[in-house]
Amino acid sequence: MISIAIMGLGTVGTGVVKLVEENAASIQRKLGEPLQVKSILMRRIKESPYQSKMTLKFADILEDPEIRVVVETIGGVEAAYDYTRQLLAAGKHVVTANKQLVAEKGRELLQIAKEAGVNYLFEASVGGGIPVLHALTQTLVANRIDEVYGILNGTSNFILTNMTRNGAMFEDVLRDAQAKGYAEADPTADVQGIDAGRKTCILANLAFGVEVTPEKVPMEGIAELSLKDVGIAEAAGYGVKLVGRTLRMPGGGRTAYVAPHLVSRELPLSNVEDVFNAVVVRGNATEEVMFYGRGAGERPTASACVSDVVEALQNPKYRPEIGWQQDDGAFVDPAQLSSRFYFRIAGSAADAAAAFGQVEVLSESEETAFLTESVSGEQADQLSQPLKVLARMRVLA
Amino acid sequence: MISIAIMGLGTVGTGVVKLVEENAASIQRKLGEPLQVKSILMRRIKESPYQSKMTLKFADILEDPEIRVVVETIGGVEAAYDYTRQLLAAGKHVVTANKQLVAEKGRELLQIAKEAGVNYLFEASVGGGIPVLHALTQTLVANRIDEVYGILNGTSNFILTNMTRNGAMFEDVLRDAQAKGYAEADPTADVQGIDAGRKTCILANLAFGVEVTPEKVPMEGIAELSLKDVGIAEAAGYGVKLVGRTLRMPGGGRTAYVAPHLVSRELPLSNVEDVFNAVVVRGNATEEVMFYGRGAGERPTASACVSDVVEALQNPKYRPEIGWQQDDGAFVDPAQLSSRFYFRIAGSAADAAAAFGQVEVLSESEETAFLTESVSGEQADQLSQPLKVLARMRVLA
Repeated sequence: MISIAIMGLGTVGTGVVKLVEENAASIQRKLGEPLQVKSILMRRIKESPYQSKMTLKFADILEDPEIRVVVETIGGVEAAYDYTRQLLAAGKHVVTANKQLVAEKGRELLQIAKEAGVNYLFEASVGGGIPVLHALTQTLVANRIDEVYGILNGTSNFILTNMTRNGAMFEDVLRDAQAKGYAEADPTADVQGIDAGRKTCILANLAFGVEVTPEKVPMEGIAELSLKDVGIAEAAGYGVKLVGRTLRMPGGGRTAYVAPHLVSRELPLSNVEDVFNAVVVRGNATEEVMFYGRGAGERPTASACVSDVVEALQNPKYRPEIGWQQDDGAFVDPAQLSSRFYFRIAGSAADAAAAFGQVEVLSESEETAFLTESVSGEQADQLSQPLKVLARMRVLA
Repeated sequence: MISIAIMGLGTVGTGVVKLVEENAASIQRKLGEPLQVKSILMRRIKESPYQSKMTLKFADILEDPEIRVVVETIGGVEAAYDYTRQLLAAGKHVVTANKQLVAEKGRELLQIAKEAGVNYLFEASVGGGIPVLHALTQTLVANRIDEVYGILNGTSNFILTNMTRNGAMFEDVLRDAQAKGYAEADPTADVQGIDAGRKTCILANLAFGVEVTPEKVPMEGIAELSLKDVGIAEAAGYGVKLVGRTLRMPGGGRTAYVAPHLVSRELPLSNVEDVFNAVVVRGNATEEVMFYGRGAGERPTASACVSDVVEALQNPKYRPEIGWQQDDGAFVDPAQLSSRFYFRIAGSAADAAAAFGQVEVLSESEETAFLTESVSGEQADQLSQPLKVLARMRVLA
């Protein structure tokens, strides 16, 4: 009998307990032994079918030699950080869905895991049930990874989809999403791009092996997005999507950012709707591979945690490919990255052309919406200075 | 220095040699030692940058104790089967892209691998560079897999996409695909659904752990498909796709088949165009997860082979989850599977309704195209007997 523990019994933690029970037979076939959840760390004991497993004392888990893997679903940094350090140092594998902790403290925690010879695994932290991190570190190993981008926040995508489909305003769709449980009471991290930004950092760290810390990554969300721009983009053959993106820069170094984009309907990413997530990995051998599925929710996220538990038990050695070096100073401001840009201005097509030269006009009345040729973010800033800019987004095509 | 060998130096074999050279640094970081291609088995020595590695004698590879992994890219069954058996029995890992061999002899070869304590890995046999088999056996382990379906043949999908997009006839697009190198001179295995059928067998074997042999799997290709049906489907909001599909039957047992389907534009699979492949895995925890990318070609397929080589070296033990039992008699004829059906008949909507009751008419002139309610394949046969059937497809929605 193999014993594991869970810290925190929210949505994901509950899903883990249930999945371990439900899929006991197939997990046992894989591990050669049955797997049980022995202890659950709580802040207070609640009435629950799992009450007999609950404890209030972290030491009950830390000091139990039978417990080999601990699933951390506390969230946030403080307690989760402190507990994870102690558990790894004590030689226990830790599995988590906590993207904030991995993005902010992952390098340090992986270093502790390395020294203790155990695993710190976090497949569930990006893309919920979509096994993309594993692919990035394991099955795409024969590639040089050049770029990773995707729709990483289900709440934002649900809101954007409904703005597009129903011509509804941001605030109204957000209220609807909160009522349906797709958005938190405090939606800041989701709609301001912070959640997608943390996931982008994790993808960048794994893809390039060098730390990208969240404070370097410009994060723009969808809260300022106007229905007008969504409609103009749609009519021109683009979906508006909140995209987290990290890539090698043509001149060397790497960049990362989160922002709403006009995504060409030619790209499969543009067809990712509602709460679904998708991550595209561009390798020098495979070219673009896309992973698509449910990026959140009890069962998908728990599925990723349980698969990491099985992985940690099957291959208990620390794996050097899951880890990243300290920032080497080669992070480049994404303002230096070139692409086409979308602008909506209070002005005419002539004003747009006067500022940018060749432009593709998408609509013109009192306001003009247009696409520029490929320019860097800095150039887009400079060239648009004489214009009254009402909206601006990058184009992904 | 770790040495491997390659058997056959066609498209995929050449790709493997190149990728091992190109990505030497990252492979070495992962393995802790450099990796080299030491020997290449040829039927005749050719002028090539790799000429010094070439040999005509299989024994040079079989009896070389330095060679730990052999990549088989010969294709077909005869020689590939014979060599693979000998190599596995001699304790060498074998990696392959040979879907015919895995579909027809996989169970036996995995049994030999198990006895010898080595790996027989075949990620490249389905979906080229898309890491779907690995996900199925490893990272989705916390799921009960209920269904796997996908677009598994790039040639067929290229032809269908061009029929739809350009209103071109099957024969014309096939000629164009052959000119572009997307279709073989003898396209039988591709356009008759045989290639997709072999891949469907491999997916079924891994998803359910029980052998599905190709001769049990009805395989229908796109060679008989009329442009008329593609157009009617398109207008009604469906893409016509060649789908390989395996699933648990509601009444127990499992089924598998390959056939053209009307795929609802609501499903992400319907947006998979040109030579791209996509595989959807439906698990009881993750729900549907889709893997999308290039299903063929030198570099994507070679990427999957090299990742399997690294995998075999990192985790050299035989893995019980990559293997399947002998057929247990629970294979169910897909004619018992229910779905909506598309029919085009020489007759009126009244004829359609007389045969099927409630129908959704898509077009009516001298011929009538319609969708039935959900019926089994057997019922669809029986109920359509009074009709002059010109075309018939299942609907996936």
